[in-house]
Amino acid sequence: MKLHSFFNSSTSFRVRIALALKGLSYEYAAVNLRSGEQGREDYRSLSPAGIVPTLVDGDVKLTQSMAIIDYLDQKYPEPRLIPDAGIERARVLEIAQTIACEIHPINNLRVLKYLTGTLGVDEAAKSAWYRHWVAEGLSAVEALLTALPPGAFCVGDEPTLADCCLVPQVANAMRMSCDLSGFPRVEAVYARCMAHPAFIAAAPQNQPDFVS
Amino acid sequence: MKLHSFFNSSTSFRVRIALALKGLSYEYAAVNLRSGEQGREDYRSLSPAGIVPTLVDGDVKLTQSMAIIDYLDQKYPEPRLIPDAGIERARVLEIAQTIACEIHPINNLRVLKYLTGTLGVDEAAKSAWYRHWVAEGLSAVEALLTALPPGAFCVGDEPTLADCCLVPQVANAMRMSCDLSGFPRVEAVYARCMAHPAFIAAAPQNQPDFVS
Repeated sequence: MKLHSFFNSSTSFRVRIALALKGLSYEYAAVNLRSGEQGREDYRSLSPAGIVPTLVDGDVKLTQSMAIIDYLDQKYPEPRLIPDAGIERARVLEIAQTIACEIHPINNLRVLKYLTGTLGVDEAAKSAWYRHWVAEGLSAVEALLTALPPGAFCVGDEPTLADCCLVPQVANAMRMSCDLSGFPRVEAVYARCMAHPAFIAAAPQNQPDFVS
Repeated sequence: MKLHSFFNSSTSFRVRIALALKGLSYEYAAVNLRSGEQGREDYRSLSPAGIVPTLVDGDVKLTQSMAIIDYLDQKYPEPRLIPDAGIERARVLEIAQTIACEIHPINNLRVLKYLTGTLGVDEAAKSAWYRHWVAEGLSAVEALLTALPPGAFCVGDEPTLADCCLVPQVANAMRMSCDLSGFPRVEAVYARCMAHPAFIAAAPQNQPDFVS
């Protein structure tokens, strides 16, 4: 199995967490988003959107982190990251999709580049944009978590897809100096995850292409 | 079952298609995004993010269109919109998530309002932004469709979650006068869907809160 990944990409980080939780070994293929490697023709033949991550598993080539984690969860079901059925399944997907659809895409590197490059937005306004969507999105996540029975992780006492999405988003928010004091449940889950070996192994600073 | 929806919201449109494909009847609760009803306290108690759609099914209250469709597909499995297993499942999720994560969030109404309101972007630049992300995203979708065996719908000969996502996105793109001539597979699937009674029933112009 091979994962095309960039250390600092939060969607790559999601998939690395899932792989680590399942104890799956894989070859790491670095795609440097800063130098634009994702737009090169050879990479576009793997990922038509020119984005990371891409998973290659035998004959299967798959893009989109949420589709990749579902694929892994089907093929390598231990431990399950998306509960089989019931309300827990719905809650895991609701939290995961809130992060994947309401926060991450709007603050993605290519969107920020469009803001500053094409639209001429300055750094202060770009940071305000970033913090606005983090605050909006994490408020929703905090409310969803608060409505659930307390647990060590987002939904229950074992990590799920929701945690795979939460941790990279919070790590990004911390890197961008967002104020997280209004989100105690989010912070508690993040702290719990970052003490877990799989989340540590998947973290940006522990990838072969990491640069500080 | 009750669906909180806005006629012109493409995430609401996705869920309406799923409900119609499954032949499920439901009460339609209109949330006027133009007048800001989604931000009202009573609606925020249903949807912490203040977004549509929200599904209420007995005791279950659920936000996020992708989580809602998965919930419906688990509880009311005929016809299946997300294949149970195998590569078809992965392809359906890959296409659906490409639309849900790479196109729709960046062109959502609240993001466009931030561009014009907070950042003072003019209408021409806003339209260029919209068309840019549609072109980027639909190029990826076209490539994903082209790599699949030909079928009437996105994946195979029956509608799936991928079509639930594709149709509202293409309808939006047409409303914003995007050039779709480079995406013949996308256009063919869209045309096939829009001849299907469930897609017609779910269309914005056939909702009780429609205004032209």
